[in-house]
Amino acid sequence: MRIFEQLESEVRGYVRSFPTIFKTAKGSFLWNEDGTKFIDFFSGAGTLNYGHNNPIISQAMIEHLQNDGIVHGLDKATVAKKEFLQTFYDNILAPRNLEYKVQFTGPTGTNAVETALKLARMVKRRSNIIAFTNGYHGLTLGSLAVTGNTFYRDEFYGMRLNADHMPFDGYFGPDVNTVDYLRKFLSDNSSGIDLPAAVILETVQGEGGINVASVEWLQQLAELCREFDILLIVDDIQVGNGRTGNFFSFERAGIKPDMVTVSKSIGGGMPLAMLLMRPELDQWKPGEHTGTFRGNNLAFVAATQALSYWENDDLTEAVRYKGQIMEQELKAIAEKYPQLISDVRGLGMVWGLEIPRSGFAGEIAKECFENDLIIELAGSEDQVVKFLPALTIEEETLREGLAVIDKAIGDLLQKKEDLRTGDTHQ
Amino acid sequence: MRIFEQLESEVRGYVRSFPTIFKTAKGSFLWNEDGTKFIDFFSGAGTLNYGHNNPIISQAMIEHLQNDGIVHGLDKATVAKKEFLQTFYDNILAPRNLEYKVQFTGPTGTNAVETALKLARMVKRRSNIIAFTNGYHGLTLGSLAVTGNTFYRDEFYGMRLNADHMPFDGYFGPDVNTVDYLRKFLSDNSSGIDLPAAVILETVQGEGGINVASVEWLQQLAELCREFDILLIVDDIQVGNGRTGNFFSFERAGIKPDMVTVSKSIGGGMPLAMLLMRPELDQWKPGEHTGTFRGNNLAFVAATQALSYWENDDLTEAVRYKGQIMEQELKAIAEKYPQLISDVRGLGMVWGLEIPRSGFAGEIAKECFENDLIIELAGSEDQVVKFLPALTIEEETLREGLAVIDKAIGDLLQKKEDLRTGDTHQ
Amino acid sequence: MRIFEQLESEVRGYVRSFPTIFKTAKGSFLWNEDGTKFIDFFSGAGTLNYGHNNPIISQAMIEHLQNDGIVHGLDKATVAKKEFLQTFYDNILAPRNLEYKVQFTGPTGTNAVETALKLARMVKRRSNIIAFTNGYHGLTLGSLAVTGNTFYRDEFYGMRLNADHMPFDGYFGPDVNTVDYLRKFLSDNSSGIDLPAAVILETVQGEGGINVASVEWLQQLAELCREFDILLIVDDIQVGNGRTGNFFSFERAGIKPDMVTVSKSIGGGMPLAMLLMRPELDQWKPGEHTGTFRGNNLAFVAATQALSYWENDDLTEAVRYKGQIMEQELKAIAEKYPQLISDVRGLGMVWGLEIPRSGFAGEIAKECFENDLIIELAGSEDQVVKFLPALTIEEETLREGLAVIDKAIGDLLQKKEDLRTGDTHQ
Amino acid sequence: MRIFEQLESEVRGYVRSFPTIFKTAKGSFLWNEDGTKFIDFFSGAGTLNYGHNNPIISQAMIEHLQNDGIVHGLDKATVAKKEFLQTFYDNILAPRNLEYKVQFTGPTGTNAVETALKLARMVKRRSNIIAFTNGYHGLTLGSLAVTGNTFYRDEFYGMRLNADHMPFDGYFGPDVNTVDYLRKFLSDNSSGIDLPAAVILETVQGEGGINVASVEWLQQLAELCREFDILLIVDDIQVGNGRTGNFFSFERAGIKPDMVTVSKSIGGGMPLAMLLMRPELDQWKPGEHTGTFRGNNLAFVAATQALSYWENDDLTEAVRYKGQIMEQELKAIAEKYPQLISDVRGLGMVWGLEIPRSGFAGEIAKECFENDLIIELAGSEDQVVKFLPALTIEEETLREGLAVIDKAIGDLLQKKEDLRTGDTHQ
Repeated sequence: MRIFEQLESEVRGYVRSFPTIFKTAKGSFLWNEDGTKFIDFFSGAGTLNYGHNNPIISQAMIEHLQNDGIVHGLDKATVAKKEFLQTFYDNILAPRNLEYKVQFTGPTGTNAVETALKLARMVKRRSNIIAFTNGYHGLTLGSLAVTGNTFYRDEFYGMRLNADHMPFDGYFGPDVNTVDYLRKFLSDNSSGIDLPAAVILETVQGEGGINVASVEWLQQLAELCREFDILLIVDDIQVGNGRTGNFFSFERAGIKPDMVTVSKSIGGGMPLAMLLMRPELDQWKPGEHTGTFRGNNLAFVAATQALSYWENDDLTEAVRYKGQIMEQELKAIAEKYPQLISDVRGLGMVWGLEIPRSGFAGEIAKECFENDLIIELAGSEDQVVKFLPALTIEEETLREGLAVIDKAIGDLLQKKEDLRTGDTHQ
Repeated sequence: MRIFEQLESEVRGYVRSFPTIFKTAKGSFLWNEDGTKFIDFFSGAGTLNYGHNNPIISQAMIEHLQNDGIVHGLDKATVAKKEFLQTFYDNILAPRNLEYKVQFTGPTGTNAVETALKLARMVKRRSNIIAFTNGYHGLTLGSLAVTGNTFYRDEFYGMRLNADHMPFDGYFGPDVNTVDYLRKFLSDNSSGIDLPAAVILETVQGEGGINVASVEWLQQLAELCREFDILLIVDDIQVGNGRTGNFFSFERAGIKPDMVTVSKSIGGGMPLAMLLMRPELDQWKPGEHTGTFRGNNLAFVAATQALSYWENDDLTEAVRYKGQIMEQELKAIAEKYPQLISDVRGLGMVWGLEIPRSGFAGEIAKECFENDLIIELAGSEDQVVKFLPALTIEEETLREGLAVIDKAIGDLLQKKEDLRTGDTHQ
Repeated sequence: MRIFEQLESEVRGYVRSFPTIFKTAKGSFLWNEDGTKFIDFFSGAGTLNYGHNNPIISQAMIEHLQNDGIVHGLDKATVAKKEFLQTFYDNILAPRNLEYKVQFTGPTGTNAVETALKLARMVKRRSNIIAFTNGYHGLTLGSLAVTGNTFYRDEFYGMRLNADHMPFDGYFGPDVNTVDYLRKFLSDNSSGIDLPAAVILETVQGEGGINVASVEWLQQLAELCREFDILLIVDDIQVGNGRTGNFFSFERAGIKPDMVTVSKSIGGGMPLAMLLMRPELDQWKPGEHTGTFRGNNLAFVAATQALSYWENDDLTEAVRYKGQIMEQELKAIAEKYPQLISDVRGLGMVWGLEIPRSGFAGEIAKECFENDLIIELAGSEDQVVKFLPALTIEEETLREGLAVIDKAIGDLLQKKEDLRTGDTHQ
Repeated sequence: MRIFEQLESEVRGYVRSFPTIFKTAKGSFLWNEDGTKFIDFFSGAGTLNYGHNNPIISQAMIEHLQNDGIVHGLDKATVAKKEFLQTFYDNILAPRNLEYKVQFTGPTGTNAVETALKLARMVKRRSNIIAFTNGYHGLTLGSLAVTGNTFYRDEFYGMRLNADHMPFDGYFGPDVNTVDYLRKFLSDNSSGIDLPAAVILETVQGEGGINVASVEWLQQLAELCREFDILLIVDDIQVGNGRTGNFFSFERAGIKPDMVTVSKSIGGGMPLAMLLMRPELDQWKPGEHTGTFRGNNLAFVAATQALSYWENDDLTEAVRYKGQIMEQELKAIAEKYPQLISDVRGLGMVWGLEIPRSGFAGEIAKECFENDLIIELAGSEDQVVKFLPALTIEEETLREGLAVIDKAIGDLLQKKEDLRTGDTHQ
C-alpha cells in the first residue's frame, strides 16, 4: 500500500474504508491480491448494476479492441455510437414513448448535470435553479451549487451560485407537503425566490440517505413546474438504469421530465454520461458544449450490450423480486435491533438502514468489511447504511450478504456490551 | 447517418465537419464504413498522442478484460492503479525530480481543472484566479470562468466567477512584456484586481490558436507568482504528454508549477485525468472531492503501457525530429502562399497556420477531408489550421498529410481564382 | 407639472399617485400650490414620525444655520454630533440598558443595511445572510439581495448574492412555526443552506404588507441565532423611532439584536442613518466604510431635537392611545365591508387593511387622494392599504382621516354597484 | 472627545486626523470649540465647492424652514423640486446642449452610481461593467465592485461582481495608450472580457490620487464605447460641479456621456445625488428604483441657490485663475523639494503632490493641521497630498494655505534632519 500513501492525494477515501488491494472482480464478487473474496453491496456507487465484468459486456469490448474499432471519437459519427443510439432508441425510448434527444457530455455524471443546468438557463433566459435538501448532483462548480452537503463546500469556492434549496419530500415530516411550500414561494412575487429556469432532483436521493420521493409528490412537483413554466430535470445518474425496477426511476410516477441526466451504469462500468432533453429544448449551437471524452466509443460498445437487458421485462421483474427480499430481510434486522435502527427505506434494489447513533453505521460497514462484505454509507452524517447490490446478483449471494450485515450488527453490539460489562475475555 | 440527425443533440459538431461514419482505426489512420482510409492530423484533440489502438495499449487492455481485472474501482486500491502510480513515479516524476502528489479526478480535463481551482482557493483562502486571454480550460462552470472564448458563454450561466483575464505572452505584440502588466496590477492595491489564489495557463494555447509562451515569459511569470505567493497552475491537458517534446510542456522553461492538470493522452485514449500538486498543497480531507469514474482501472492499464514510451528519450527525440519536418514543411507552404498565411507557429508536434481571410481555414479543413485528411481549426475566429498528428506517426504518413494540406490550399486558391475569372470548365 | 414630465426620469412614482405640486407642510397636513390642504397618513414612508416641520426641530435647524454651525462634517468631531450622541445615549441607549456602538453611515437606510451586512460578513467570516419573505431592505445591490420583491430585481443586476430567503412569521399560516423550518435547514449539514453570518429582518414588515412578527417568534428566532452563533440584525428603519410604541420595535419582545439599522425618522425629516452594533462587533479599521454625507450635521441638530420626545414615556403612551383608535376604527371598517377586506393588521401606529380584490386597494388610495387624504399601499401586489400617520397627529385629524377612508371605500363600492346596475345617472 | 471614543464606531476616521471638535464654519474657514480658526483645503471631500454656509444658500434654507416649505417629499412634485429642475435645465443643461433626463436617487454618491449601473445593465441586457484602476465609486456592494482600492474590500463581502478593471490613462506610463489595450480585449472574442453594458470612470480620479485623464484619451474612450455599443458613464461626483473649471468635468473633452452621476457639491452642502441619462435610456418603470430621501427638498432649495453661480462664466474664470495660482505655487514647492515630491498633478482647482516616501504625506497633513490647515490625502498608499479648496476661496486665503504647506514641508524636513544629525536642542 506504500505507493498509495506516498503518491496519492489525501483526498483518497475508499482505500481507507477498504484497506486492501483489489485485483479481480466478477459479477457480485471482488478478490484482493491475496485471493480473499468479497461480496459487493456497493457496486461502484451504482455504476455496476450489471455486475463486475459482465461477460456479454466484456466480450464485446474485447472484440472491439481486437478489431481495432474506434476507441476515442469525440463527437464524430462511428459505428459503435450508431449502434448504441439505435439500441437506446429501440430498447429504452420507443417502448416508453419518450421523445428525447440525446447529448453525450463528458463521461461523468457531474458533466451531464452541468450541461443540463447550462441548457436550462440558456433556453429559459433565467439563471436560478431550484434544488432540494440533501440532493447530490456532483462537485464541479455548477453542480456543487445544487448539491446540499456542506462537507463538499468551501466558502472560497464561490457562492452557491444561482441556486435555491427547497425541502425534499418528507423533509418536515409526513404531514407537510413540501410542494405546497415551494408553490407558496413561487406564487409570491416578494418571496425572494426568483422564478427558476429549472428544478433538479433525484427521485430517490442516494448520497442524501436513500430518501424516496412519493409518487404523489413527484406528480405534484411535475404539475407545479408545468404551471410555472419551469423545466423539470430528473438526475437519474444513481437511481436510473433499472435500480428502482424500471429503467428510469421516474416511470413509477408516470411523469415525463423535460431533461434527464444519465450516467453511472449506462456505460456498463465504463465512463459514459448523457443528457436527455425534449427536442424543443435542444437549442445548442454546434460545438457549444464539448468535452474530449464525450465520444467514449468503448463505452458505447459496453453500453449497447448492457441495454440488451432491456429487450424484455426480465430485469425489472428480477429487481422487484430481489428488492422484496432486501426489504423483508432489512425490516427483520430492524425489528431485531429497534434500539439501533430507526428506519428502513428504499425502493427496488436501493435500500438504507438509518442508524442514528453517531458513528455506528461506520462501525457496521467496517465490521462488514472484516467479514468480506463491501458496503457504503449515505446521509448527511453518514448515518445510513446503504445497499446497492448489482441488479444481476444471485439470490444466494444477496441473502449471504444480508446475513453478514445481521451478524455484523449483532457482533458489534455484543462487543460494546462486553466492553461495557468488562467481559472482554476473547 | 439518419439516427444521428434524429436522436443526437444539435450540439454535435465534428460529425458535421467530417460527415462519414468511422468504423476502425490504427495508428495514424481511420477507416470509415466504406473502407476509405483517412490520415489523422487531429488525434482526438490531443488524446491520441500514441496513435489509435496502439498495439501495446490494446493488448494490455484485452488481457485485463480477459482476466477479469478490476474495471471500475472508485478510489479503492487496485493492482492496476498501483502499477500505474509506480510507473508514473518511475518514468515521469523521479527522473524529473518532481515531488508531486497525484489526485485522480473525474476522468475529464475539466474536472482536473475544477479540482485545481477548488484546491487553490481552499488552500490560499482567496477566491480570485488569474487566467489568460485565449485560454481554454473546459466548459463546466468553474472551468468556464477561466476560459476566454465567449462562444461558450451565455449571460445566464452566471458570471465569470472570481476570475480575471490577463494578456498572454505576445498579446500586445512582441515588444510588450505582459508579465510586467500583470505585475503592475498585482503591485497596486487599487488596481481592482484582487490578489489571486492562483494563475492558470497553458504554456502553448491549443484551442486558443497555437500561441506559444516564450521561455522567458514563463520564467518571469513563475517568478512573479513566487514573489506574490500565488500558486502557478499549468494546464497541461492538451500540450502535455510529450506533445512539445518533453513529457510536460513546462520542462523547456525549467519551472516547477505548484499544480499541473493532466488528461487526454495520459490514458492512452481512455478517459483519465489527474491533478498533480506539491505535497504541502494536498490539504484535502478524505473524500472531499470525488467522482464516480475517478478510478477508471481500464484506463490505468492503458496509461501504464503508454508510459512505457517514457522509459528513455526515444519519443522526445522522435518528436523533435518530426517536429522539425512539420516546421520546415509548414514554413515552405507559408512562403508559397504569403497572401494567405500570416503566421506559422508551434513547438514540438503542435503547429498552426494562421489564415486571416475569414472562413478560409475552414474551407481548407473541408478540402483536406475530401482528400482523406482529418484536420481541425483553432483560434477565436477558427482562423488557425491546427496540426496535432500522433507523436508516433510514421515520417512517410506525416509527409503525406502535409502534402495534402499543400495541395488542398493550392486547389482551393485555384478554384477561387477560377470562380473569379469565370474559368469553371471542370 | 410640465417640467417634471420633461426632465424627471420615468422612475418617478408618487408624483403619479398624487398628481399635484405640494408647497408647504406642517404637522399632519400638506398644502399644494393652490392652497388645498391634505391630511398625511403616509408620513414620508415613515420618515415624519414627528410630523412635517415640527417646530422644535425647525427652530433648532434655523438657529444652527443662522449661527453658521457646521453643516457638512464627514466624520470629523463637531458640536452638533457630540450633542446628538450624548442625547442618543441619555434618552435611548442608557434607559434601555443597550450598549451599542454607533456608526454613521451614508444617510440612507440602504446604506445602513449595506454596512450591517458587510460588517456581519467580515466579522463572522461567512458570506451568507438569511432574509425573510416579503422583507424590504433597500435597493442598492447588497441590500437588494435581501429584499424579497421581484419588482425591484432584474436578472442582469446580478444574482441575489449570498442570501437565502426563509418564511417570515405566519408565512404558511398561523399553525406553522417558521422558526422551526429555519432551524431544520440550519441543523442539517446537507440542507443546501450555508450557515449565515447573520439573519436580517423587520419585526413588522412595512413595504411587505404590515406583517407583524409575534413576540414568541422573535424570541425563538433570537434564541436560534444565539444557538448557531448567527448575528441577529433588526432593520428598524421603517418601524423603529417609536412607530410601534417603543423607540425600538424589538423592545416588545425583550430581545437585544446584535445590530440595528436606524434611519428615516431618526433625522426628524433630514437624511440620517446609523448602524448600532454590539461593541465586540465593532471591528472596522478607521475609514474602512465611509460616505460623503455620513456627517450630516444639520440632521444631527434635527435629530437631537427629535430625541427630546424620548425624555419620558409620553410619546409611547400617545402611540398606544392613538394606535387603539386606529385599530378600533379599521376593524369597524373591515366589519362593514367583509366582502372586501380580508384582514386588519398592525401594531402601535402602523396598520394595514388587506384588500384581496386586484387593484382595489389602489382605487381606494386614489379616491382618498381625491378627498384630500394621502395614503400609500404595501404588499407584494399592492393589496394592502397602509396607515402611517405621524405619531404626533392630533386625535381629531386622525379620526378625520380614518373617516375619509371609510367614506372612500363606501363611495367606491357604490360607484361599482352603480356601474353594474347601470344606475349611472350622476 | 470622550463621547466619540465611547459611542462612535472604530470606523471613524477624520476625527483621528483632525482631533478637535469643530463648531462653526464660514466660507473657507472652520472654527473649533476653542475658537481656533482653520483654513479648509479639503471642502468636505469636494462637497463644499461653494464654501461653508454660503450666505445665499443658508439664507434660502432658513427662509424655506421659516415658511414651512416641504422638507421631505419622496418623489412627490413640490415647488422646491420644480424650481431646482427648472434652474438646472436653464443654467446647466440648456446652455451645454445636453438633453439629459434627471433621476433623483438616494442622496449619496454611491446611490447614484448603483442606479447608473443597474440601469445600464437593465437597458443593455448585459451584466459586465468596465471600471478603471484606482477608480473610486463608493462602498455599497454594487459600487464597491467597480472601486479599485482593496482597503475597502473583504473577501467575504462577495466577489467584485460583474466588473472588469482596466488600466486608466497613463497606468503603464506615458507611452502606452490604454484605450488600445481595452480595445484589444473587446475586439477579441476570446479575451475573457465579456462585452460590458457600460464603462464607468472619473475623468480626474480624486481618491485614486489626482490622476487626470487626457482629452485625447477621453475622446478615444468615448469613440470606443460608441463603436462597441457600450454606455459611457462619467462619475462626476467629486470633480463635477465646477471643480475642473467647467460645470461638468468632461466638457473639456467635448464628449457627451450616456450617463452622468452627480452628487457632493450639487446640494450646496446638503445631501443630494442625481443620475443624468440620455432620454432613450430612461427605461425605468415607475417606482422601480426608490429611496426614502430621494426628495430631499431642503437640498433642492440649497442646490437651486448654488446653481445661481452658473448663470454666467464668472465661476469658471475664477477657477481658472485660482487654479493657475495653485499650479504655480505647488510646482514651486515641488522644485524646492525635488528629493521629496515626485509629481504635481491636477486641473482646475483639484491638485495633488505625490510624495513617494512612505508615510510622509501623512506627516505633512498632520503638520498642516497643527498649523491650522485642513488637508487630505489620496492615492492607493495615501501617498498624495490632495488640494480641494472651495472654488469660492479668496485668493489671499488660498495663498495663505499654500504657504502653510510649504512651511510644513520645510519644518518637517528640518525636524528629520535634526533627528538624523542628533541636533535636537529645541
